Amino acid sequence: MSNDPANAPTSSTKIPRVVVVGGGFAGLRCVRALRRTAVEVTLVDRRNFHLFQPLLYQVATGELSPANIATPIRGILRKQKNAFVELGEVTEFSLDPTLVRTSDGELPFDYLVLAAGTTHHYFGNNHWAQFAPGLKTIENATEIRRQILGAFEAAERAQDPATIATLLTFVIVGGGPTGCELAGALAEIAHHTLEHDFRHIDSRQARIVLVEASGGALDVYPQKLSERAGMDLRRLGVEVRLQTRVVDVTASSVSLSNQITGEIEVLRTRTVIWAAGVQGNPLGEQLAKAAGLTVARGGRLAVNQDLSLADHPNLFVVGDLAYFDHDDSGPLPGLAPVAMQMGDHAAACIIADLAKQPRTRFRYRDRGSMAVIGRYSAVGMIGNRQVNGIVAWALWLGVHLMYITMFRNRLLVLMQWGWTFLTHDRSARLIVDGPAVDIPSMERATGWDDDPVNI
Amino acid sequence: MSNDPANAPTSSTKIPRVVVVGGGFAGLRCVRALRRTAVEVTLVDRRNFHLFQPLLYQVATGELSPANIATPIRGILRKQKNAFVELGEVTEFSLDPTLVRTSDGELPFDYLVLAAGTTHHYFGNNHWAQFAPGLKTIENATEIRRQILGAFEAAERAQDPATIATLLTFVIVGGGPTGCELAGALAEIAHHTLEHDFRHIDSRQARIVLVEASGGALDVYPQKLSERAGMDLRRLGVEVRLQTRVVDVTASSVSLSNQITGEIEVLRTRTVIWAAGVQGNPLGEQLAKAAGLTVARGGRLAVNQDLSLADHPNLFVVGDLAYFDHDDSGPLPGLAPVAMQMGDHAAACIIADLAKQPRTRFRYRDRGSMAVIGRYSAVGMIGNRQVNGIVAWALWLGVHLMYITMFRNRLLVLMQWGWTFLTHDRSARLIVDGPAVDIPSMERATGWDDDPVNI
Repeated sequence: MSNDPANAPTSSTKIPRVVVVGGGFAGLRCVRALRRTAVEVTLVDRRNFHLFQPLLYQVATGELSPANIATPIRGILRKQKNAFVELGEVTEFSLDPTLVRTSDGELPFDYLVLAAGTTHHYFGNNHWAQFAPGLKTIENATEIRRQILGAFEAAERAQDPATIATLLTFVIVGGGPTGCELAGALAEIAHHTLEHDFRHIDSRQARIVLVEASGGALDVYPQKLSERAGMDLRRLGVEVRLQTRVVDVTASSVSLSNQITGEIEVLRTRTVIWAAGVQGNPLGEQLAKAAGLTVARGGRLAVNQDLSLADHPNLFVVGDLAYFDHDDSGPLPGLAPVAMQMGDHAAACIIADLAKQPRTRFRYRDRGSMAVIGRYSAVGMIGNRQVNGIVAWALWLGVHLMYITMFRNRLLVLMQWGWTFLTHDRSARLIVDGPAVDIPSMERATGWDDDPVNI
Repeated sequence: MSNDPANAPTSSTKIPRVVVVGGGFAGLRCVRALRRTAVEVTLVDRRNFHLFQPLLYQVATGELSPANIATPIRGILRKQKNAFVELGEVTEFSLDPTLVRTSDGELPFDYLVLAAGTTHHYFGNNHWAQFAPGLKTIENATEIRRQILGAFEAAERAQDPATIATLLTFVIVGGGPTGCELAGALAEIAHHTLEHDFRHIDSRQARIVLVEASGGALDVYPQKLSERAGMDLRRLGVEVRLQTRVVDVTASSVSLSNQITGEIEVLRTRTVIWAAGVQGNPLGEQLAKAAGLTVARGGRLAVNQDLSLADHPNLFVVGDLAYFDHDDSGPLPGLAPVAMQMGDHAAACIIADLAKQPRTRFRYRDRGSMAVIGRYSAVGMIGNRQVNGIVAWALWLGVHLMYITMFRNRLLVLMQWGWTFLTHDRSARLIVDGPAVDIPSMERATGWDDDPVNI
């Protein structure tokens, strides 16, 4: 394959085939941007829905239902006649001939856009995963919801004060946006939502501990905002441990190391949530290998200024999986706006190729970013302006509502937020997928497990 | 224990303890009806939510989310100071001393109200359960939703016409309200919701087969209504097989026996939904044994006119599990209104005992019942009046909205129904709990399974 985009597969007379892997923000935007172009675009995803990941923590904390933040991909692309949807697993990439192998067959392509995103990263301690789930999928979110609500239920039944204290200790690892948003929501649950639900325990005595290795919560923001975020979290009752690393996680404890004093502290807890590290989806490494390249830091793929891979103008990597480092601002962060603009840009490059025009370089237009902490409280940057407090919170609400894909979900989410805000109630706090008893063997010992699916 | 209610445990000076097992319509109504009585009432349930079961089929068909029809029990009883909630499994009943053993300990009682409901019944063929899930729990509903949507996805990927036909054949066993409602909703999904979603298959070619052993769909209603229901289902594109029994179910077929001709027909299908038989929860048999009684037909418990068990005035059985046969109308059916009135009545008997008043006999006030079939189509009885068509449909909507427990869910459900009605869209059609690929082993063969919970 030539390195010159003008020589790209467009020279063939048949209709060019674009395969997009991943239906997140980047992949979906790329497919949509090709809707008026004479290409056949196939979107491959393991799941049948697009997930609005920035609100996933609200499913984990019982404010929203999975369907509120997930939209069937086929529904989104229903009217785009040149778009095909394949539900399946990608198993291999081949570059000669150029095709993607899936669990169901082969998809030949002229252009490939890889938008497979990132997964959790436990810094070489993958055995922590079983005790400290991360928050990337709908299943993660309902599992975390189950753990949190189950801990309160188990505490209500427990007799021993030490056991109750262990059950009511919640540790969140990672002080980025997801960690801060989870910590704030958990504080709201413990101090307000569940305040009158229990008879034996006082849910307000729950400890919520946020652990962050760097010197500040939300330290991607300027120091003033980071300090404000820490202050707001403490005001909500969250214990914020800065410059602290996790050195061990077990079924009933987490060990923390203070980076300044070197002291080790062991917290007894049954609920640890991992919001610390991410790494590129393993598909990135597979594609790198097929293309004779190596992955960059964090398993991500370094891309050219036009988002294609070195020496492979027909292979694009977009979204969280792309390592784009051509600006003064350093590598771009894994944010939804970055992903969406990247998806648009990869489509624009393909359109330019077909029109025999030169490709342009990708430039991220940073319109700002925000993280919500609690009621009336958020921090963020709008361009170069720092915002915080109720102004940032109102902006956060508006922006997130605006971006939720479908009109209908937007209305439903608005209503649920309004209700939660007015009443502190969170109606989606269901414990599903098995009863929340401590000893799983109990489920089979009794006659009340009437679920034939699990027989 | 004396048979005379006046001698019941009320003679003790300490506050009487009532244990209610099961947080469905019957159990919850019983607890609520005791809110102004000087008793301590403990509700035991395996799950942390009350489920509005009549709408469960709408979760299975992607119209509603689980949280729309499930309300946290602790939230419902938050303000009832004499009510306690125990999340756990009941493992045993003891009558001397009188207590309920759960997975977490013992609950002594003066009165026991058993409202444990029913489970599926495969008429001695429990091995069919793995191929033909029933619809009783939230997990059943999301599993059936996954199967239905997964079948369309697999058909879209399949090449062989016979395989596609197998995948697009849906068989519903049982022509009662649940079976008819499911069949109608499936027809709507195939003919309208998914109409433009696929590129290779035509979802409208899906076959929906409803199998009923008796001579008519909805045969609990008068013959005219039953015929009308069958006509409406056929108009929607459902194949209605009457006087037909299921004689075998496998992973890829269901065998039907025509009761008149004796002919056996084998339908190739991957999706069979069981809406045929129910039997009493095994807890009913446990209590019967403890009380020296035997269970009635279908594993239910025959109750006295006041809903107590023979010779045990302090043991009540209410809801679907109760076999009440003291009216001309024969045993009462397993319907939500019956369950709610029974729950109220058991509470009234306890209140009467405490006031040293005589108990009254239970009388079911039949305000009517209805089953919806599709858009503008339902059948039902309001008192002695038969209703059908759009009038019945509008009534069904109103009654079900009215009864959904919490105001907020009612609004959300109304909105989702309105949207589905106007657009034919069903936004909750998510395939969760594992990707919808045919070969589960694929999930582990690739690197895209990033769910640490399942590691």
